[in-house]
Amino acid sequence: MDDVNRLGRRAIFDLKPYVPGKPIEEVEREYGITGVIKLASNENPLGPSPAALNALKDAINKVHNYPDGNCYYLKKELANSLHLPEDHFIIGNGTDEILKMLGETFLNPRERVIFAWPSFSEYDFITRLMGARPVTVPLRNFVHDLDEIARQVDEETKLIFICNPNNPTGTIVDGQDLRLFLNQIPSGVLVVVDEAYYEYVTAPQYTSAVELVKEDERVIVLRTFSKIYGLAGLRVGYGIAAPKIIQLINRVREPFNVNLLAQKAAVAALQDKEFLQQSRDVVLKGKEYLYDSFARLKLEYVPSEANFIFLNLKRDSREVFMSLLKEGIIVRTGDIFGYPTWIRVTVGTPEQNKRFIASLEKILDDRV
Amino acid sequence: MDDVNRLGRRAIFDLKPYVPGKPIEEVEREYGITGVIKLASNENPLGPSPAALNALKDAINKVHNYPDGNCYYLKKELANSLHLPEDHFIIGNGTDEILKMLGETFLNPRERVIFAWPSFSEYDFITRLMGARPVTVPLRNFVHDLDEIARQVDEETKLIFICNPNNPTGTIVDGQDLRLFLNQIPSGVLVVVDEAYYEYVTAPQYTSAVELVKEDERVIVLRTFSKIYGLAGLRVGYGIAAPKIIQLINRVREPFNVNLLAQKAAVAALQDKEFLQQSRDVVLKGKEYLYDSFARLKLEYVPSEANFIFLNLKRDSREVFMSLLKEGIIVRTGDIFGYPTWIRVTVGTPEQNKRFIASLEKILDDRV
Repeated sequence: MDDVNRLGRRAIFDLKPYVPGKPIEEVEREYGITGVIKLASNENPLGPSPAALNALKDAINKVHNYPDGNCYYLKKELANSLHLPEDHFIIGNGTDEILKMLGETFLNPRERVIFAWPSFSEYDFITRLMGARPVTVPLRNFVHDLDEIARQVDEETKLIFICNPNNPTGTIVDGQDLRLFLNQIPSGVLVVVDEAYYEYVTAPQYTSAVELVKEDERVIVLRTFSKIYGLAGLRVGYGIAAPKIIQLINRVREPFNVNLLAQKAAVAALQDKEFLQQSRDVVLKGKEYLYDSFARLKLEYVPSEANFIFLNLKRDSREVFMSLLKEGIIVRTGDIFGYPTWIRVTVGTPEQNKRFIASLEKILDDRV
Repeated sequence: MDDVNRLGRRAIFDLKPYVPGKPIEEVEREYGITGVIKLASNENPLGPSPAALNALKDAINKVHNYPDGNCYYLKKELANSLHLPEDHFIIGNGTDEILKMLGETFLNPRERVIFAWPSFSEYDFITRLMGARPVTVPLRNFVHDLDEIARQVDEETKLIFICNPNNPTGTIVDGQDLRLFLNQIPSGVLVVVDEAYYEYVTAPQYTSAVELVKEDERVIVLRTFSKIYGLAGLRVGYGIAAPKIIQLINRVREPFNVNLLAQKAAVAALQDKEFLQQSRDVVLKGKEYLYDSFARLKLEYVPSEANFIFLNLKRDSREVFMSLLKEGIIVRTGDIFGYPTWIRVTVGTPEQNKRFIASLEKILDDRV
């Protein structure tokens, strides 16, 4: 065979490879250093909840069995927690997989998918994977421009993604604005509200779209156990929608898509309200400290409703990234979002935040 | 919205839902019984390997971190174990996910995918998911009919699946026959050899297709940690192919598709040769006992190179299934494979095999 590339579907050559935050192990391996801290992927710096850890200890000797393909207990716990029947939920191998399933369920070639830019890069991925067309609407003052998104909707539009709070800016869409927006969207267009960082929001004008699922079959909400629940390594996220929508997505789901340990840990984590509150507090206090430090260093930043901050360093952020890496600190550069002088930094523990600020200050001083 | 169903891609309405073996927990819940044994999903009855369990214990406090998106250490261990460079491997959330990725990478609408019937049902699933056309070739004497499969290949054919050993019959394709078969297949047709049960094979005429990957870019081999390695609950399988093929499949892969604990446990399990040998022995001895018992009960069965046996009860196997269920034993009925009087039973521990035979004998006696 001269060239196996010709065997691939045309759509796959249009996919941009995802640039993941480097795992700590890999950085330590590459640079021969230890004690690396990762403020690049918005994980929970407190670790998994103690309740989840206990559930894992109890379950590891059962991993020779296939997981429950229906995620019976996890759906039950979610239903209980969110006051919606169990048939409103679908569980995925991380929200990433639910995004892929949304593409597989709904997207025909050439249909349009609208989302803000910068926002989570996987919306683009699943759109192109299905041969559909991504339509990006620039943020306005770092916030979703709902009016422009609504104007972009046409007869070929199938899906709209709203990342709320938005990654990488941490900004939110007001609950009232979201309702008005939905009223403008014609039937036949699905609105996916990605609430990966929902649990961190404190702004009173925010409303979770879970409220809207009850009254609007077009709304699909995505949530995750990878962020505040501290289970990123286990891969478990969920979708909330009308039962008819869930049934459609279930058609494309692999039978054992969510591993056994993820299911057990997620049930336990949902019940551990104390850890949730603790995790929220760490982020709120961490943001105060970081905001103060950025003000002192005269650095522009976007006030965030999530556990990360988007920050302008006014110089090539890839160079700062490399300097921070040598100090044992991993952040995300803004170039992948089209902001080459910005970084996105995860709010860590007080010690991690201090170390980050000290290193950043040193690096910025060095280069004046 | 009158009917959300019209929003779904047409292909998804052509998908047949997978019928999973019931999880033990669910059966115990439904029937209010305990001590249920599951001989329905070809899991390892010895549990996960002790080395894997230790690796899990060490890693559970790290699950707040995203997994390594490249599966660096697992690929390294596989490369070492199979004497192939690391760029020959792709890791999936179970082999199921690799199958889906194969569809997403290679299958255009209306292309033909050829596989034997009965065989693993997911080949049909991923074919229909992509709007491609499944072409099934009946087994001949329970064995793959390679001549007929080769005859079915035409210009629209893109993929061929060979399940070796075959699920649900446990039969194999000879190494020599597989080589001759490949010589007949035109370039541009990919041949996927699913070796989920490879580690159980003892027949001298069997050759793993891993040997063929080295010399033929069209060959893709699938392996899993769900069977002999006892890690079904963690979801981890792998594909072996030429680097160019692996690169193509990587385009459709989600960045964190394989969870952190699965990666750690799989590395440890690969190194635990003693557990592998022990698991093989249990199955070989179990098959001897079951063959003898079936002969005594005058039941027709297919001699198996895997850890399950396909067995003719000469009566509606769904009724026997229900009777066995009441005895606390779960098996798979053959109706889903088009053999309504057959069952597929996993070889268990000596105690489980005895309990299965005792219950089966009782049930068959009752109904004479």
